[in-house]
Amino acid sequence: MVNVAVLGYGTVGSGVVEVFRLNQSRIDKCAGTEVRLKYVLDLRDFPGDPVQDIIIHDFEKIVGDEEVDVVVEVMGGIEPAYTFVKRCLEAGKNVVTSNKALVAAHGSELLELAQKKNVNYLFEASVGGGIPIIRPLNTSLTGDEIEEITGILNGTTNYMMTKMFYEGADYDAVLKEAQANGFAERNPEADVEGYDACRKIAILTSIVSGQQVDFEDIYTEGITNITKEDMKYAREMGMVIKLLAMMKRDREKVEAIVAPFLLPLEHPLASVNGVFNAIFVHGNALGDAMFYGSGAGKMPTASAVVADIVDAAKNRHKNLSRYWTGQKLTLADRMEVKRRYFVRMSGCREDMQASVEESFGHVDYVTVEGLDGEFGFTTDVLTEGKMKTASSKFDNIIHMLRMDE
Amino acid sequence: MVNVAVLGYGTVGSGVVEVFRLNQSRIDKCAGTEVRLKYVLDLRDFPGDPVQDIIIHDFEKIVGDEEVDVVVEVMGGIEPAYTFVKRCLEAGKNVVTSNKALVAAHGSELLELAQKKNVNYLFEASVGGGIPIIRPLNTSLTGDEIEEITGILNGTTNYMMTKMFYEGADYDAVLKEAQANGFAERNPEADVEGYDACRKIAILTSIVSGQQVDFEDIYTEGITNITKEDMKYAREMGMVIKLLAMMKRDREKVEAIVAPFLLPLEHPLASVNGVFNAIFVHGNALGDAMFYGSGAGKMPTASAVVADIVDAAKNRHKNLSRYWTGQKLTLADRMEVKRRYFVRMSGCREDMQASVEESFGHVDYVTVEGLDGEFGFTTDVLTEGKMKTASSKFDNIIHMLRMDE
Repeated sequence: MVNVAVLGYGTVGSGVVEVFRLNQSRIDKCAGTEVRLKYVLDLRDFPGDPVQDIIIHDFEKIVGDEEVDVVVEVMGGIEPAYTFVKRCLEAGKNVVTSNKALVAAHGSELLELAQKKNVNYLFEASVGGGIPIIRPLNTSLTGDEIEEITGILNGTTNYMMTKMFYEGADYDAVLKEAQANGFAERNPEADVEGYDACRKIAILTSIVSGQQVDFEDIYTEGITNITKEDMKYAREMGMVIKLLAMMKRDREKVEAIVAPFLLPLEHPLASVNGVFNAIFVHGNALGDAMFYGSGAGKMPTASAVVADIVDAAKNRHKNLSRYWTGQKLTLADRMEVKRRYFVRMSGCREDMQASVEESFGHVDYVTVEGLDGEFGFTTDVLTEGKMKTASSKFDNIIHMLRMDE
Repeated sequence: MVNVAVLGYGTVGSGVVEVFRLNQSRIDKCAGTEVRLKYVLDLRDFPGDPVQDIIIHDFEKIVGDEEVDVVVEVMGGIEPAYTFVKRCLEAGKNVVTSNKALVAAHGSELLELAQKKNVNYLFEASVGGGIPIIRPLNTSLTGDEIEEITGILNGTTNYMMTKMFYEGADYDAVLKEAQANGFAERNPEADVEGYDACRKIAILTSIVSGQQVDFEDIYTEGITNITKEDMKYAREMGMVIKLLAMMKRDREKVEAIVAPFLLPLEHPLASVNGVFNAIFVHGNALGDAMFYGSGAGKMPTASAVVADIVDAAKNRHKNLSRYWTGQKLTLADRMEVKRRYFVRMSGCREDMQASVEESFGHVDYVTVEGLDGEFGFTTDVLTEGKMKTASSKFDNIIHMLRMDE
């Protein structure tokens, strides 16, 4: 018998309780033992809810109970989650979490502690919600050097980009609608500024490199400047615009970035629409692969949490993986990263053509019917540094977008 | 140190050797020990090839060598692979395979033997080539009841369906082209008749149900009757035609089928084109997920084989999973399975309308410009039995296709 305590009866916590209610026999079978929810920690009471019988308000009761083998941290945020997780690991308990902020901020320390105590700190639900990605990276892609991970890792912004692309809607209107439908928070900053996706790609890059990647080091640009006019250019070029969280390895240099990208319609990520998430992986033997599913939501996230509980139950006293060390990875200098760019300029193409080509080199022009007084062009492959220098010579750039192929 | 012997230096076997050459340090790191190729068994010699130093011609040398921990069976076919695998497992060696025919035919016996000997019989590469699906099903989707698996599991036929749909090409022309490009065998039967996909869905259904599913019990229909006219109807309806291998569970009844299906363009599988494979999974907590990648080919398949070698190296004396027992699963009676259908009939719709609706109930008509002297219609949800009875009253049915939504 394995006893589980859940810290926090919010969206994910209540999802975990529901998955146990629905799938108890499947869970026990997969774990090879009976897995029982013993406690749910919350400040509140839930009279009438079946969970009330196991609700407790005192964390000490969990950390001090030797019967508790697995602790599920689904409180979110840094504190008190960080302190609680550390104390549970120190007490020799396995910890399962969906808390990407905590994993990104203190992952290497907590992973080291888990290893020292010969238990596990598992966080499948912290990236891509229900999509299995962390365990596959760690146990299925072990024969490959992973050269690229590009993810649509935020459902809110993908919903917004999809609506803007397919329905020609305005950013502000789409954000309001997403908020009304519960797909976006009242304060949408963490989503639309790319902060959420940034923490997730920091975690994936840490796993792939085996070293600590500080999310603060990852250049992050949100979608707040994307307009329906940008979408028109994208459509004209047979592309879509997606907020991508990307890591690429070029020999020993690892690049990581979060930004809206132009992506060809044929790319597997281009047809990932609405609130769905997907993670595209390129391995040097595997080639291209993609993992797709619900990146958030109560039940999908709980599904991933429960899978980690099962893994912890099967390996209570065996550390499965350190994932990454505390050694910090220095990311590639952004100014040296090479790619193609799309630029929108106000003015008349004929007047500007000579100076554009002098600064940007060879370009291909794009015009969209109905968008007068402006034009667009795509560059050849340039370093971001070269791009910045070229752009600085113009005061009529409306918008610049990176391109991925 | 873990020693590996590879049985067969064909396409996959040489891929495995190449992945070791490319990624030796990554493999050792993931396995936590040095993993070394000790022997490659083949009837031929390969003078000048670096593998020549470890080529042997006598299987007894492998099975009798106590240093060999992991045997990779990439010979294909039933014999002598079956005898060799059994003898290796009996000798206490882990076996890794890409041989779907053997897994589908003798999986439960070999899995039982591996469990008895406390070693592993691993076969990630047998379904979906490089796509991680068997390990994720077994270790990541453990909190879910899997209610559906629908796969595009054969690259050859998906290449053909894609060409026929997007380029309006003829079946015969596309087959010839696929053969010329090396995407189809000279004898394409195993692919185009659905036999290959059938073995793969038998393996996946066995894993999900935990019981033996005999591939002979799975109704299997190939793509040989699909015409470019069918593709025109599909396009008219906003759908594509794909060869799907499907298992669905309705309470305790499990249905399995391989057949060409009409699929809405919005379905995640609809945009899986060319030789790519994908496996769509629906779990009762997870919701919809999809795993996408190269379903065949030397390096992707070798990538999956090597991942299994790493897993076996990490768990040399610990059986990870029985996957399924020898207890046979009785599949749902096909005649009782319910779905929608699309029917093409010759003749004039106005003349036929009354008798069509009398037999099939409510239908929606589809007409395609330029296809004269015929019409199409889609039915409501019917059992396959009801459909068969209704169809038997007409001798002017050109083609019937199942629909998935």
